[in-house]
Amino acid sequence: MKTFIKPKILQGTRDFLPEDMAKREYAMNKIKSAFINFGYDSIQTPAIEYAETILGKYGDEASKLVYRFKDNGGRDIALRYDQTVPFARLVATNFKNLPMPFKRYQIDRVWRGDRPAKGRYREFYQCDVDIIGTTNLLAEAEIAGVIAKVFTTIGFENFTIKFNSRRLINNILDSLKIPAEKQSAVIRILDKLEKVDRKGVIEELKPLINESSAKELLDIVSITGTTEEKLKLLDKYETKEIREFFSLARLFNIADKNLLFDPSLARGLDYYTGIIFEVFFPEVAIGAVCAGGRYDDLCSLFCPEQFSGVGVAFGFDRIIVAMEELGLFKDLTLNSQVLVTYFDDSTLATSVKLLSEIQQAGINAEIYFEPAKITKQMKYADKKQIPFVVICGPEEVSRNEVTIKMMKTGKQKTIPQNQITNYFKGYSEI
Amino acid sequence: MKTFIKPKILQGTRDFLPEDMAKREYAMNKIKSAFINFGYDSIQTPAIEYAETILGKYGDEASKLVYRFKDNGGRDIALRYDQTVPFARLVATNFKNLPMPFKRYQIDRVWRGDRPAKGRYREFYQCDVDIIGTTNLLAEAEIAGVIAKVFTTIGFENFTIKFNSRRLINNILDSLKIPAEKQSAVIRILDKLEKVDRKGVIEELKPLINESSAKELLDIVSITGTTEEKLKLLDKYETKEIREFFSLARLFNIADKNLLFDPSLARGLDYYTGIIFEVFFPEVAIGAVCAGGRYDDLCSLFCPEQFSGVGVAFGFDRIIVAMEELGLFKDLTLNSQVLVTYFDDSTLATSVKLLSEIQQAGINAEIYFEPAKITKQMKYADKKQIPFVVICGPEEVSRNEVTIKMMKTGKQKTIPQNQITNYFKGYSEI
Repeated sequence: MKTFIKPKILQGTRDFLPEDMAKREYAMNKIKSAFINFGYDSIQTPAIEYAETILGKYGDEASKLVYRFKDNGGRDIALRYDQTVPFARLVATNFKNLPMPFKRYQIDRVWRGDRPAKGRYREFYQCDVDIIGTTNLLAEAEIAGVIAKVFTTIGFENFTIKFNSRRLINNILDSLKIPAEKQSAVIRILDKLEKVDRKGVIEELKPLINESSAKELLDIVSITGTTEEKLKLLDKYETKEIREFFSLARLFNIADKNLLFDPSLARGLDYYTGIIFEVFFPEVAIGAVCAGGRYDDLCSLFCPEQFSGVGVAFGFDRIIVAMEELGLFKDLTLNSQVLVTYFDDSTLATSVKLLSEIQQAGINAEIYFEPAKITKQMKYADKKQIPFVVICGPEEVSRNEVTIKMMKTGKQKTIPQNQITNYFKGYSEI
Repeated sequence: MKTFIKPKILQGTRDFLPEDMAKREYAMNKIKSAFINFGYDSIQTPAIEYAETILGKYGDEASKLVYRFKDNGGRDIALRYDQTVPFARLVATNFKNLPMPFKRYQIDRVWRGDRPAKGRYREFYQCDVDIIGTTNLLAEAEIAGVIAKVFTTIGFENFTIKFNSRRLINNILDSLKIPAEKQSAVIRILDKLEKVDRKGVIEELKPLINESSAKELLDIVSITGTTEEKLKLLDKYETKEIREFFSLARLFNIADKNLLFDPSLARGLDYYTGIIFEVFFPEVAIGAVCAGGRYDDLCSLFCPEQFSGVGVAFGFDRIIVAMEELGLFKDLTLNSQVLVTYFDDSTLATSVKLLSEIQQAGINAEIYFEPAKITKQMKYADKKQIPFVVICGPEEVSRNEVTIKMMKTGKQKTIPQNQITNYFKGYSEI
């Protein structure tokens, strides 16, 4: 008896069928169009690189998640873990030939050997956008503008771009007499406030700082009010940078409700140095859908030249989940708009001729591949969500006519063959 | 002294900078649009799969080229080697829910640990298009139509779609009394005729068949003339399938010069069973840029259900090389069409306002990030190939005007600010 290989895939990886791909490509094209509208160009780096490059930046915890192996030549290789490190490596190699400031986007896969869970995959997409080579706060403001453009272009109305500054947090920690060498660790714990709650954060801070300082810190960063009110309360910690960013960001068509100064926003990663961002959908409990900020030295691993920059990464899979929940894929169809039937061999030449005319008018169309029963061909059209079926039987052919069936309503119309492209051009949904 | 990681990439892999990506995305979008115009939908499979799946089909020679490793859980994993095997695995899992016939395209990376050489990479793209679930020759004809559509859409005028049938070759080999069990090996050698020449092929055939049979075989498959003349000469080996394919293919708007019956075309892979294709650019010595054919049983590794199909893969990197050589990227620009200058802080608000208006009119535009000297900002526009610079200094702002510089000609024009979007909409190149 013949044995078969079980057709299974690795946990944490996914197949995408046409319906999935239609949604993913729709969302991806919207994201791209927002990046491009702001004049960003794309770059691409290899999926496989020297392990030394990929691992360079990460601590032990993250490097456990890197897929790493030896190739046939004994080279130590790893799969891309994020897009920041390869970007830094590319800039270190090419900065002399790049326009500066350099604006790029990068949409590609990354791999992490993480324990798979709901919404956590081993192979997934990141959408990164960065500006390097300028320290001007206009860059931070533009990134906020790009975030707003991405989400409004996709169709989200309610999104909250939370912002804060690492400098402000450091100033607050200084005022609480928390020594510089402890501040990174404190910030990493503060970053959990959204998930762990106040009590939990205080508990975690205890080994680092005394309880009263911890409470005072949380009181300071948890103040409420309008942006102006919060800034006034925090003025003694220096808010010039945040004030300047805020007034620049408001030039970029961001609705007031979409931009929120949150002094408790911390971000976990050490390498941020200025304004930081996290974006949430208030209606969808899915965590941050975009995050990033200002960093001082992108390429420090690879070269002595310093490149300051600001950038964010969009979590593509979370955005897809939120779009599903909010019904933002409602009217999406697959590619094919017209099915031309195959009646019999005597009418086939006419069917293909009509097919070609429809296609050449820029309408996506296909022909059924066998002279099957018309009900079978209709079933196929239904399954592929094709809105129009062009019926071209011997009777129609003898009269130089063609019958068009609208699948949604079931209505049919017979028209002269030479009016077929005009007929479809009249439908706005095509 | 600080040491740096050398910013190098693996041989056979590549970084793509904005200029490269503009070309690659342009070509890829053209290829996609041709697939979509024929009603193909896309699918995506993971880059990493169980090694058992990826290796299933290949002989020892190819499996040496597969990137294979153990993950942290000890699973035996491989990087995708081609798109056919993962497609077969996906169909075996999902065929009950797929429309049949099923038409899909798939454009993605594959990895091969091959010795890198000019035009041979370890990480590269394949563009696959297949129809499964029908044995009707209309499917082969449509694939020929898709090939023609892809290349004409990209802008190629001279391309040759060579076709033949495996059945015809088998019949010729039968008539020469070459036993069935030797025919695959003979076909694999015949496939080298383009590269090795007649003498070399006869030499390689000697261990398998006697020299006079080898010469007779080459005489038969090397006949010249029109398609009709060749078919007449070969009628005794049964040419019904080829005749039928040829007449169907001609319905699909393929220029006669683009379609060539070549009885010597063999294709190396065992799994083809009917019509086979290879496509060449006569003006560019780069080998086949597209190849494929009819196969009988896509999923035989994974399930007992049989799926016959026909499909081809386009060699994306070779197509890019040919487009370069033939100047098909001539008028391609990067994304940004307009640079708005940043004069000083008093004019910045107006600059950003104009930027937003231009962007919202659907024109890709950006602002310079620093109040640098105007010559520096112009240099930046030059480097990014930005055709228009919008100058918005204190004098312009005081008069509600703006000055537009066309970078190609150096000409400047001052217009009222509220006419800015109309101005750009008038340029067809935007």
